[in-house]
Amino acid sequence: MAEATLGQLAARFGLVLQGDPDVRVTGVATLRDAAPDTVSFLANPRYRRYLAQTKAAAVLVDAAAAGDCTVAALISPNPYAAYARIAAWLHPEPVAPPGVHPSAVVDASARIAASAHVGPHVVIEADAEVGERVVIGPGSVLGAGARIGADTRLAARVTLYRGVRVGQRCILHSGAVLGADGFGIAQDVDGWVKVPQLGSVVVGDDVEIGANTTIDRGAIEDTVIGDDVKLDNQIQIAHNVRIGAHTAIAGCVGISGSTTIGSRCMIGGAVGIAGHLEIADNVAVLGLTLVSRSLTKPGIYSSSVPAMEAGQWRRVVARLRHLDELFGRVRALEGRRTDPDPEHS
Amino acid sequence: MAEATLGQLAARFGLVLQGDPDVRVTGVATLRDAAPDTVSFLANPRYRRYLAQTKAAAVLVDAAAAGDCTVAALISPNPYAAYARIAAWLHPEPVAPPGVHPSAVVDASARIAASAHVGPHVVIEADAEVGERVVIGPGSVLGAGARIGADTRLAARVTLYRGVRVGQRCILHSGAVLGADGFGIAQDVDGWVKVPQLGSVVVGDDVEIGANTTIDRGAIEDTVIGDDVKLDNQIQIAHNVRIGAHTAIAGCVGISGSTTIGSRCMIGGAVGIAGHLEIADNVAVLGLTLVSRSLTKPGIYSSSVPAMEAGQWRRVVARLRHLDELFGRVRALEGRRTDPDPEHS
Amino acid sequence: MAEATLGQLAARFGLVLQGDPDVRVTGVATLRDAAPDTVSFLANPRYRRYLAQTKAAAVLVDAAAAGDCTVAALISPNPYAAYARIAAWLHPEPVAPPGVHPSAVVDASARIAASAHVGPHVVIEADAEVGERVVIGPGSVLGAGARIGADTRLAARVTLYRGVRVGQRCILHSGAVLGADGFGIAQDVDGWVKVPQLGSVVVGDDVEIGANTTIDRGAIEDTVIGDDVKLDNQIQIAHNVRIGAHTAIAGCVGISGSTTIGSRCMIGGAVGIAGHLEIADNVAVLGLTLVSRSLTKPGIYSSSVPAMEAGQWRRVVARLRHLDELFGRVRALEGRRTDPDPEHS
Repeated sequence: MAEATLGQLAARFGLVLQGDPDVRVTGVATLRDAAPDTVSFLANPRYRRYLAQTKAAAVLVDAAAAGDCTVAALISPNPYAAYARIAAWLHPEPVAPPGVHPSAVVDASARIAASAHVGPHVVIEADAEVGERVVIGPGSVLGAGARIGADTRLAARVTLYRGVRVGQRCILHSGAVLGADGFGIAQDVDGWVKVPQLGSVVVGDDVEIGANTTIDRGAIEDTVIGDDVKLDNQIQIAHNVRIGAHTAIAGCVGISGSTTIGSRCMIGGAVGIAGHLEIADNVAVLGLTLVSRSLTKPGIYSSSVPAMEAGQWRRVVARLRHLDELFGRVRALEGRRTDPDPEHS
Repeated sequence: MAEATLGQLAARFGLVLQGDPDVRVTGVATLRDAAPDTVSFLANPRYRRYLAQTKAAAVLVDAAAAGDCTVAALISPNPYAAYARIAAWLHPEPVAPPGVHPSAVVDASARIAASAHVGPHVVIEADAEVGERVVIGPGSVLGAGARIGADTRLAARVTLYRGVRVGQRCILHSGAVLGADGFGIAQDVDGWVKVPQLGSVVVGDDVEIGANTTIDRGAIEDTVIGDDVKLDNQIQIAHNVRIGAHTAIAGCVGISGSTTIGSRCMIGGAVGIAGHLEIADNVAVLGLTLVSRSLTKPGIYSSSVPAMEAGQWRRVVARLRHLDELFGRVRALEGRRTDPDPEHS
Repeated sequence: MAEATLGQLAARFGLVLQGDPDVRVTGVATLRDAAPDTVSFLANPRYRRYLAQTKAAAVLVDAAAAGDCTVAALISPNPYAAYARIAAWLHPEPVAPPGVHPSAVVDASARIAASAHVGPHVVIEADAEVGERVVIGPGSVLGAGARIGADTRLAARVTLYRGVRVGQRCILHSGAVLGADGFGIAQDVDGWVKVPQLGSVVVGDDVEIGANTTIDRGAIEDTVIGDDVKLDNQIQIAHNVRIGAHTAIAGCVGISGSTTIGSRCMIGGAVGIAGHLEIADNVAVLGLTLVSRSLTKPGIYSSSVPAMEAGQWRRVVARLRHLDELFGRVRALEGRRTDPDPEHS
């Protein structure tokens, strides 16, 4: 853990300090549970009620909220991003020492940077390349020809199939699998014929990939994940998907084959996206939505239904089955107005 | 496999026996396929039709069904729980011998109980603690400072990140990942800033965690799983979620960050729960439902739509797009009643 | 990479060649990016627009499209299956050399075929059986008594729990877990009682199982996956499910316990299927659908709603909550027609 004065934090991170610059802090905390040697932050208005009672040394706020601070304020136009940077600086990642653990099995043809850390029981196959300061967690497997750029970290038990390429400064969490065969099967008279998956997976720089997320290799061309893409846990990305830079995808999303997603999109949890679609830049999709057509315009899209009391919802569903018929009935009723039945008028 | 007479089972498990106490049984079976040396059970009324033909030595039933038994009956107010206990007693788990496999890589500072079993290719980092009679399956990884309480069993290939704490008598299935970073990212002008995930995961006693389920570490405070919580496979639990005691969650559920779920809840398969919500005790949510608001009262909730023939459903969906308009049209029609159009009256 | 003339391909794969039989090809490519020494294919009409400009040596097409080929045509009634076979032949899988890696931990009682490949850090427990030419990828774990048929390939980090049986020519991708305990819990007054999961998993021949897919062992009887079943990534199959031959299931599907699925079914992505159901042969279910009742007839089923602009969808959802009431209002309006209000007629 590092230590700093509020004045040092303000100078280092370009913040306006309202309060005593000589107060020392050693960590970060939530508004509610902050000790007097910590920095807290207000990013979600939901937690504003805790601002008045916080015991933090200082709170990261935007200018509008600074007046409500009863303790020191560190003012930023983007307090959450400033918090993220300060937290990373006060709580640095443990450093993994360079070197290859003796239990690791590394092919003689693999090129491992001297500054890289290769953990216990790692397997690195022929011609793989591991860049400077890379960390490969215990039990991870790099297939033949896989390549990992500088400063990327793999947690325990990550799989890169042969030929998969990952850029610099990426983080891959435990259980992630990159480069398994895409789901390519051709129907023939007596069953399925496997379609060889000959492409690979190419991941840009600054990408984070969550635990147990899977990204399949392409059928012929590659599956491509752009720079600064952020993927949560248990996402499934099928073959030949392309995801544009800065797009963030929440947990449990499934993206079908050959779909292209633009840049700076935000995809909510458990969304399903069909195959062969084009999603424009700056599209947001709310959680549990099905995207079955291309979305060619930026905007927010949804098709999810929030929970109701189950008995009430059961009646809605029963009615849904007759919705088409209801439209007909209303049309019939309206028909009387525009073309009234003489018998009743 | 153990062996017992029906009389011994009745005595040991507090059951009323209707039948010959000296008949011997060696295992359990379904009603349909039972051999004469097995005990069966009737818990789901769906299978009552098999009661008359079963060849089991005895059937676990409640008092109401005992009269329908043509073989011996072991009567319990809760035949399924009684079955579970008898099955566990007749079919004990294989015992893993104490000791650390020579291929395991265990840091010198880790404390491993002498009665614990550490399997092949396990990795245990600095300062981790493994309690009495714990079983660590092959290829599992315990990060620095992780702690596992007595009698807990990890299957093959489980990951506990650094500092994760698991209670006593838990079962963690293969591929489970506890303590990966939560999905914390702050948007800045030129892309995402990673928000350090400084909390941990704390799992109570008697918790079961399914295969490939992921539980993220907290952003600042911990993610907390209460005692006797039962989690099926492929569940995703985000940072700072808190789950109350005795809650059971079926497969493929996703729970977003900072949501609190009460005690004794039952969450169906593939449910999605949004972030920052409060779910009361004793809430049941049916499968494939979206929970996007807090549920403050016990009850059963749903928003899932059962499958229809696809052509019929397509018409419903087309109509849904015009539902708002339909309400307007009905309002217009009703308008004639309360404010009748003079031309038609 | 292999090499062939178009004439050789036509002869070997039973195709009609329209063009020069002596042109040599060394690989496959998409229509759009094909080099002159590659074979391409037209299977999805979406890509027909690229047919005229392709630089491929030849294109696999059906007879109807052959006339539109400006390059050579290899004509098949099923060009996609023909493509799959040609691609596999031109791009053969790397061969894994027979033998057990010295870092693997193999119990003395296990039977490993001499032609099998057992990779680094694999663990094979007592009495397991590994057939001829089987490949076990790095870090995989075979529990006691697990059996793998000839020519089956396990990628890195696959888990088979004790007693799991896998047929011949199967492919299991990284992170797949077969045989974890089913989610069997019995409610008792003071919490949950675990129901021992005493069955196993039995997988037929020619089955493919995707990355991080989980198949639970049966409670008493086995969970059964039929021949030529194709499972994509991150599928969850609960205890005692039975899946018929040739059924294909896309990613992120969850199937609850004791459900039987017929043969030649096609289940779309993220579908949820409830427990104890019967799904007939030749049923297709579209993505994100909930199947909560048995489907006894072949056909296509759906309940998924495609995304709309979020504000518009919010109004639909608000209306849905009042749908039951709307039916009543329409009924009331219709009441006037069959039993007209004298005041208005």
